[in-house]
Amino acid sequence: MDTKVLDAFTQEYKQLLESELRTLVEKLNAPPNIKEAMHYSLRAGGKRIRPLLVFATLAAFGKDPKMGLLAASAIEMIHTYSLIHDDLPSMDNDDLRRGKPTNHKVFGEALAILAGDALLTYSFEVIGKIPNEIASSETKLQLVIEMAKAAGSEGMVGGQVADIEGEGKSLTIEELEYIHIHKTGKLLKYSVIAGALLGGANHDQLENLKAFAHHLGLAFQIQDDILDLEGNTELLGKPVGSDTTNQKSTYPQLLSMEGAKEALQKQLVLSKQYLEDTGLNIHLLNEIAELVASRDH
Amino acid sequence: MDTKVLDAFTQEYKQLLESELRTLVEKLNAPPNIKEAMHYSLRAGGKRIRPLLVFATLAAFGKDPKMGLLAASAIEMIHTYSLIHDDLPSMDNDDLRRGKPTNHKVFGEALAILAGDALLTYSFEVIGKIPNEIASSETKLQLVIEMAKAAGSEGMVGGQVADIEGEGKSLTIEELEYIHIHKTGKLLKYSVIAGALLGGANHDQLENLKAFAHHLGLAFQIQDDILDLEGNTELLGKPVGSDTTNQKSTYPQLLSMEGAKEALQKQLVLSKQYLEDTGLNIHLLNEIAELVASRDH
Repeated sequence: MDTKVLDAFTQEYKQLLESELRTLVEKLNAPPNIKEAMHYSLRAGGKRIRPLLVFATLAAFGKDPKMGLLAASAIEMIHTYSLIHDDLPSMDNDDLRRGKPTNHKVFGEALAILAGDALLTYSFEVIGKIPNEIASSETKLQLVIEMAKAAGSEGMVGGQVADIEGEGKSLTIEELEYIHIHKTGKLLKYSVIAGALLGGANHDQLENLKAFAHHLGLAFQIQDDILDLEGNTELLGKPVGSDTTNQKSTYPQLLSMEGAKEALQKQLVLSKQYLEDTGLNIHLLNEIAELVASRDH
Repeated sequence: MDTKVLDAFTQEYKQLLESELRTLVEKLNAPPNIKEAMHYSLRAGGKRIRPLLVFATLAAFGKDPKMGLLAASAIEMIHTYSLIHDDLPSMDNDDLRRGKPTNHKVFGEALAILAGDALLTYSFEVIGKIPNEIASSETKLQLVIEMAKAAGSEGMVGGQVADIEGEGKSLTIEELEYIHIHKTGKLLKYSVIAGALLGGANHDQLENLKAFAHHLGLAFQIQDDILDLEGNTELLGKPVGSDTTNQKSTYPQLLSMEGAKEALQKQLVLSKQYLEDTGLNIHLLNEIAELVASRDH
């Protein structure tokens, strides 16, 4: 498959996003240390898959992807806060994230917790400040509500709770799916929802895009589990086999490696089917789905 | 001073608020443990001064205080999350809060951090869901933006950072005021702003109410410092003298006890002056100001 179009798109919008994140934090009138702690984790990079989903969904509607810049920034702030808090000693106790020392290793636990709190809080202000030319107050409010649902106890935070409670236990496939649908899936789905709401989706388009994102999120997580066993420590930025070390249940463990790879293909096919049904210009979203399933980090 | 009107008002609206907080958490479709951790700290009580400010500000506009129920609930959730995170071992490391074991003592650090995150996130959803009959989408968005500013790195979180960084140092009165204006003041001020926006304040009323809340916040904090030295452990729910133990700078320490009491009266007079200038029905707000300055816990 020719991925040159997605590569160029990714490069352009990653750069725009990273510059916007810098600007958004830079203009805060706040103690220098917390701004530095916020910057540190925001610029730690990563695939920026959530922002790319916002931009690519807007592109699917034939809209200027830049319309999603603030929503994408808000989502990346929430994702980043969740990584900072997940890495804390009382949670996953990770020293490395994307090959760099984790936030609390550099700034201490107190500032790491507060930097996470500040990013989460700021994300709602950033959504609130989307210009009126881009979205009506009604749409912005809907973005606020859906983002809170995706990130809170009914979404990402709920998934993290289930993940922690599941450690050291052998989970059923349903329990494992609950964790992933909530911990990773809801915010990925919200990224597509945000692009769709800003793009002016009708009811059917929104439903199909949600189903696309749901299956994409599961594919993403299965590939994550596969990479944890078959990946490359250097590319991953964390030790291979860390799920086993942390006594986490994984798809390969529950389904065998072969079964996990089959499940991944099944989710990928489902996600692309729903995408097809939107009737939109799905070229970029399709490529992102391919990328998620075949990525090496 | 006759406080019977405020007493009845407080009793009625505290009950309404506490019942609303229970309902709001109860209806979350989330893991039972995190809901229990959220409930635990929300029902730990306290003076509910921020919700009362929302209700009393609405009353000052001749509006039904119940219009502020969701905004007041959101603010109390933010206040509660901040207490949960502040009490953590890596922050103030407190075992008791309002005479009860702190959240992390009961639920463990991981769940305490996540319960805080969940309360903060939910507060924005709660604001977003204020019925349209009570506030327009524009007003709700303004409430979202102002709440994020009050709670985030430019507000409460920024104050907490400065507080932690100031521990063990001898601060100037300006540095101490920075901490208090941000750590406690901004959310108290936002409570009045929320009531004012829902009550339909004009520009001058809003500015006077903000100035009222600013000075009330300082009075509140000076009284807090005085109580830490002269209060009663049982009423406070924490040991007298804990600021000294934690090497925190306080007003009595910087200004002497007499100077602190003078400063308290000065802030109280200023706050009541601005209140007078609003031309509103300020009876209840006036009583709350008196209460803040003379409370024993």
